[in-house]
Amino acid sequence: MASHPSIPDIVIGRLPIYLRALNQLMQQGKTITSSHELGQRLGISSAQIRKDLSHFGEFGKQGTGYQISHLQAQLKQILQVDREWQMIIVGAGDLGRALAHYRGFVSRGFRVVAAFDIDPARLGKSGDVEVLHTSQMQDFIKQHNIKIAMIAVPAENAQEVCDQLVAAGVRAILNYAPITLSVPNNVHVQYIDPVMHLQRMTYYLE
Amino acid sequence: MASHPSIPDIVIGRLPIYLRALNQLMQQGKTITSSHELGQRLGISSAQIRKDLSHFGEFGKQGTGYQISHLQAQLKQILQVDREWQMIIVGAGDLGRALAHYRGFVSRGFRVVAAFDIDPARLGKSGDVEVLHTSQMQDFIKQHNIKIAMIAVPAENAQEVCDQLVAAGVRAILNYAPITLSVPNNVHVQYIDPVMHLQRMTYYLE
Repeated sequence: MASHPSIPDIVIGRLPIYLRALNQLMQQGKTITSSHELGQRLGISSAQIRKDLSHFGEFGKQGTGYQISHLQAQLKQILQVDREWQMIIVGAGDLGRALAHYRGFVSRGFRVVAAFDIDPARLGKSGDVEVLHTSQMQDFIKQHNIKIAMIAVPAENAQEVCDQLVAAGVRAILNYAPITLSVPNNVHVQYIDPVMHLQRMTYYLE
Repeated sequence: MASHPSIPDIVIGRLPIYLRALNQLMQQGKTITSSHELGQRLGISSAQIRKDLSHFGEFGKQGTGYQISHLQAQLKQILQVDREWQMIIVGAGDLGRALAHYRGFVSRGFRVVAAFDIDPARLGKSGDVEVLHTSQMQDFIKQHNIKIAMIAVPAENAQEVCDQLVAAGVRAILNYAPITLSVPNNVHVQYIDPVMHLQRMTYYLE
């Protein structure tokens, strides 16, 4: 499915939240939900949810709600996670290994196929994932047509790793290093930095 | 410093991003910056940065820019990270241990003082952090007046852990379990779910 260029990125950012909530409802054995129920669970107004979904067509009928399996399938298709994306991890320290072992990827559209590190002591199997030397990274990306990578290296190495990933063909980077990366316009970066989330909460603490 | 109730949460959410960029500039030996330079680094418009900061007073002069150390100190004070917050981790699996070992907390206002797990095999020292049994968690929170916790347990246990944390006095939770938590109004929750970030990017991939 082609992306819809006119849809605000902030709307796209909420679709994975809706999809996750639908997965949970389904696990609880429900088959029908409503924008009201979703909104209550997520702390988002039901009007906002209806407006967000209306960008992509008509998913529910007034008064009857959404069929969960249908809306779930549609959101997966829109987000392009109705397939499995192969991805790599760069950095096999504590965090990189925790990501390699994380069981939450496969059911939601992603599979870690390799990790890379410069430290020879970290090479070899880590759980189900093979840790290879970083010198093999660019060839691996090209051979396997990898489009997604997670960066879990120290801040001072992250930009260099990022440049190598992009040069080899990666187009989406989830960066755990606490720095802002420079990338070309056709590469997407998302950041995970726990301190940012913590600092956002301390503002409100007494 | 009391929080400013009239300031939109989305503005508060950008302050940690500015603070992190200032830290980086300072490490690079710079003393002065501008909304233009910050904006270029962060992919945020300079007008947005000036508007965000104007909520909190006058930090720079037209044409001379911001003194980095001054703006940094002010943002730390506003976010209340001009002190050290003690926090705990619940769950000492791969992720919990990676968080316990993470060296990026202390320089930015946070210290992990203990981790908790129900599995006896995981108790004892993990790096510098002691892993205690979850049965001791609520007493520990009260004794040490802990206000911040990170949840790194499986999704099916996260709400129960959350309820225990809140009952013992925790007011800010960083949740790594892939579910939405129910909390009272006076408790803040932030979420880290790598799949959400990945799904937001696959939307844009060809």
